[in-house]
Amino acid sequence: MLITLTTDFGSSDPFVGIMKGIIAGIAPEARVIDLSHGVPLQNVMIGALLLRHSVSYFPRGTIHVAVVDPGVGGARRPLLIESDGSYFVGPDNGVLSLALADKQPTRIVHLSNPSYHLRPVSATFHGRDIFAPVAAYLALGVAAPAFGEGVADFARLHIPKVGRTARGLSGEILYIDHFGNLFTNICEHDLTGRSGDQPVVSMGDVAIRGLASNYAAVIEGEFVALINSWGLLEIAAYKDSAERRAAAKIGDKVELIWDEQGKRGQS
Amino acid sequence: MLITLTTDFGSSDPFVGIMKGIIAGIAPEARVIDLSHGVPLQNVMIGALLLRHSVSYFPRGTIHVAVVDPGVGGARRPLLIESDGSYFVGPDNGVLSLALADKQPTRIVHLSNPSYHLRPVSATFHGRDIFAPVAAYLALGVAAPAFGEGVADFARLHIPKVGRTARGLSGEILYIDHFGNLFTNICEHDLTGRSGDQPVVSMGDVAIRGLASNYAAVIEGEFVALINSWGLLEIAAYKDSAERRAAAKIGDKVELIWDEQGKRGQS
Amino acid sequence: MLITLTTDFGSSDPFVGIMKGIIAGIAPEARVIDLSHGVPLQNVMIGALLLRHSVSYFPRGTIHVAVVDPGVGGARRPLLIESDGSYFVGPDNGVLSLALADKQPTRIVHLSNPSYHLRPVSATFHGRDIFAPVAAYLALGVAAPAFGEGVADFARLHIPKVGRTARGLSGEILYIDHFGNLFTNICEHDLTGRSGDQPVVSMGDVAIRGLASNYAAVIEGEFVALINSWGLLEIAAYKDSAERRAAAKIGDKVELIWDEQGKRGQS
Repeated sequence: MLITLTTDFGSSDPFVGIMKGIIAGIAPEARVIDLSHGVPLQNVMIGALLLRHSVSYFPRGTIHVAVVDPGVGGARRPLLIESDGSYFVGPDNGVLSLALADKQPTRIVHLSNPSYHLRPVSATFHGRDIFAPVAAYLALGVAAPAFGEGVADFARLHIPKVGRTARGLSGEILYIDHFGNLFTNICEHDLTGRSGDQPVVSMGDVAIRGLASNYAAVIEGEFVALINSWGLLEIAAYKDSAERRAAAKIGDKVELIWDEQGKRGQS
Repeated sequence: MLITLTTDFGSSDPFVGIMKGIIAGIAPEARVIDLSHGVPLQNVMIGALLLRHSVSYFPRGTIHVAVVDPGVGGARRPLLIESDGSYFVGPDNGVLSLALADKQPTRIVHLSNPSYHLRPVSATFHGRDIFAPVAAYLALGVAAPAFGEGVADFARLHIPKVGRTARGLSGEILYIDHFGNLFTNICEHDLTGRSGDQPVVSMGDVAIRGLASNYAAVIEGEFVALINSWGLLEIAAYKDSAERRAAAKIGDKVELIWDEQGKRGQS
Repeated sequence: MLITLTTDFGSSDPFVGIMKGIIAGIAPEARVIDLSHGVPLQNVMIGALLLRHSVSYFPRGTIHVAVVDPGVGGARRPLLIESDGSYFVGPDNGVLSLALADKQPTRIVHLSNPSYHLRPVSATFHGRDIFAPVAAYLALGVAAPAFGEGVADFARLHIPKVGRTARGLSGEILYIDHFGNLFTNICEHDLTGRSGDQPVVSMGDVAIRGLASNYAAVIEGEFVALINSWGLLEIAAYKDSAERRAAAKIGDKVELIWDEQGKRGQS
């Protein structure tokens, strides 16, 4: 059985290793894959986004544990959500929600049964004391209802909606990767039906004419817009950091304008 | 069989991966868990602390390898220590000692038998040439005495002692985690018998009244003191970095003062 | 079956975890070892160097995947190279070449068979869409020729050659590790036949007399030259960073001068 881990724990502290020790002690056959431990500190939205765009690459039955949990030890509930035969374990603060955005879960369980927790449960590290052992017992075959009472719903985050303007689409930067590539909230399917047209993508002072098929379609250092591996409109700079070159940050506005001249030029 | 790794090797160089390759070649069934490779460079004390607070979460029989080893290739001995059925492998510079602080090891072995080392042994990378192969052969079932001659003792580090003052306790910052939380050397059991009292925790200009049950007990940005997941008194700032806000560093003094007014207020 | 991964993906994004999810879905028994995900962005040479100095520590049959791939989605071919019973998977931009520098591969295959790719293949993440599934199918036992047509050669990088001067050797800094140790391109075998002599190693203002047997041979903070664990001449500073202290960078010139006075002194 596969377990994935997504946290904001970083890589210096032994917190992730301790979670893996707990899992190995309970479910020696379970395999653990790190999705990311570099979620920006306590940034639940980024944790949720990374999980959303990763889960489809894992086999059915995978147990996804996400611990970005500023409210640990407080009122938010620890949850297990079962959906399409896979499992999501973490705090009820939205971090699990984007991966489930278009799904109706089979079951939502409040992790209230202390038999599957470490004792005592600390107030500061539920990754170790609740989420890791629950994931391990799930991997061992314990059924979801054993972990606590069923609940009706869970906290949901929402990706900012793409606006439709007279000239095109208005969106924003959702995520910036290690390469400084700027991921927007504009999806491939937002462009449906306009595939013959050449858009202009603009962000602050940057204007990029047309969507490229890949980074290397422009010369080194030049900005390029394309549909990336998450199916999102991305602004990049070939062999450079678009983040640094455009001084861009999450939340910055991005416009996609259907360029009637470009269209005429093509016909 | 489980093997854990704790080093100051960082994550850019392939040094950790090379150790795992050696282990996989000798003991294909052994599983390796990273505790931390972000120990501050050559900081034996921090390496020892991280190991100390991690080992109890691993099953009996686990092989813990710690390589924070500024004296590699010099006079310090490479050691294997067996204690309570688990194993500790690393240089004899104290890095293994805090995990064994309250224990009398079953056996201490100087890793002097070259049959279980790579050949030739380099002068700069005993993690690869001695510690990884020894851990792998241990995982395969080779008994501890085969690795070299028994020795009587090993280098020990000591955690700074907590002072008892007329008004309370005097301690210091021992460790700072990725969140900027300040871990002190004051333990939960140092507070035994005073559980009805409300202490004031002070550090430089910061004074915190009372111990909270969790981070979210205060408003965002405020300092909070609590007993953390390692059983230590911790100073944190809710959804913020106490390290940055208090300009704190390892070794800074922390006082815990029993507040008679607080006590009267409660009765 | 073992698979290693070497990339410039860093540790914040879930890209590496996604590759492992793909592999686990196709070849659940395959084990994945990270060599490095901290290759400097798009630095094909460093990726190639790290792979070169790691592969000999892995068992025969290991599948080495290297994705440092600024030209992803462009003209460069995705390749599988079989050599001495081990496998190398990555883009044909030289990243695989230094590990194969002194070898004549058994087989070079252009990964042109889409049956072993994800569908659709994105233009920006061949690690996920081509290299991970190909590695997984290889681990499952699919034979190399199934992945595409054979090709005659692959792109090769070259390590800068060591010069021989009247007084000794002239080289340069090839790599700088996490400790700030400076790895040069001068190899142990470049010194063959002069083992009785004491060289002076010089770099900018730094001059080091003699090769030490290990870091601890000098006092703290002092520069030291030695043959390191990769068999290369290295300049280090004991318990300090030679990179910082000497303001050194990759490409800086290093000279090794046979010191006739040193020689006389020894005889």
